[in-house]
Amino acid sequence: MKILPSAIEELIESISSLPGIGPKSASRVAFFLLKAPRELSDNLANSIRDARANVNYCEKCFHYSDEPVCLICASESREKKLVMVVEDSLDLIAIEKTGGFNGLYFVLGGILSPMNGIGPDEIRIRELMKRLESAGEEEIELIIGLNPSMEGESTALYIQKEVEDNERLLSKVQITKLARGLSSGADIDYLDEYTLKKAFEGRSEL
Amino acid sequence: MKILPSAIEELIESISSLPGIGPKSASRVAFFLLKAPRELSDNLANSIRDARANVNYCEKCFHYSDEPVCLICASESREKKLVMVVEDSLDLIAIEKTGGFNGLYFVLGGILSPMNGIGPDEIRIRELMKRLESAGEEEIELIIGLNPSMEGESTALYIQKEVEDNERLLSKVQITKLARGLSSGADIDYLDEYTLKKAFEGRSEL
Repeated sequence: MKILPSAIEELIESISSLPGIGPKSASRVAFFLLKAPRELSDNLANSIRDARANVNYCEKCFHYSDEPVCLICASESREKKLVMVVEDSLDLIAIEKTGGFNGLYFVLGGILSPMNGIGPDEIRIRELMKRLESAGEEEIELIIGLNPSMEGESTALYIQKEVEDNERLLSKVQITKLARGLSSGADIDYLDEYTLKKAFEGRSEL
Repeated sequence: MKILPSAIEELIESISSLPGIGPKSASRVAFFLLKAPRELSDNLANSIRDARANVNYCEKCFHYSDEPVCLICASESREKKLVMVVEDSLDLIAIEKTGGFNGLYFVLGGILSPMNGIGPDEIRIRELMKRLESAGEEEIELIIGLNPSMEGESTALYIQKEVEDNERLLSKVQITKLARGLSSGADIDYLDEYTLKKAFEGRSEL
């Protein structure tokens, strides 16, 4: 028997479509929204609309922005010859939080994954090449900041090949990648062999 | 430095206020909503508004309803002399899903918790007594379907006392509670003593 009004069923269904929210927590969130002060649920509904209406992509790096050029690309204090390629804005935010990087970014919008039908045209490979070409004659260090997965590595190799095949880029773009090794707090006897091997190969003087 | 447009920061903040969603998953949900088809984010915003606008409480049992009386209370096929007291509509749904209960409900809207400032006036004790009084002369079995916590037990005792102190209810309302014992799949050597003791006390013939 139907035990909930349709409006609640629809709300639960909408909430279930969000990532990381199962049917049980969707119900919990829905009932919370029904019981919460009206202001809270109105705020949520409004901010969903506002974000969609007012936010677009930065035309240089494709990070989210409400101006044509985002705050990072527009900043005077960032080093323009360092460009880090990241998969999405979540990764960009994680790197910004470290405070250790002062260059610019390029948001690829995904990584190559033939199994999931994601080829070079589904992500911003072409836009990345254009971005590098339009940077003038100055040398650029392009840092690959992609996840250390098989897809991440093959996306890095693909970008490298695209740069090497492009005469205008070949001489001015140097490609680097984030270091591999032991994460803080890692337990050596639990680590996978690949990470350990990379940590050994990349060893440095004490 | 500010790395996100205000509209996205506000969206993340609104999402963080939902139960069970930490700041990291709030960002993930926010970026998902920005990238998802427009229809999906519109649906979510609309369904939040619609649910708030169209849903109210059933005037008999206080379950959510878009009619003055909810579908369960209005149903001809439910046993009207069985009334189960539950803490909230989530518990009501869990019991409905078992398919094993064919009576009516009463949603208390919380349980007594002096530590959190929730006394009898903060939940629907008075409404429950009115509901029982208005049921006419017929006998009623009032099943306590509250969590087996200290608060749940003291709420049950409070309800029992209120019924016993009420001459019009004393003779017609019989109070019962859900059985205590081993949950399916429970491991006896891991169970708490209280549950084991209750399982022993409530033993039945094979």
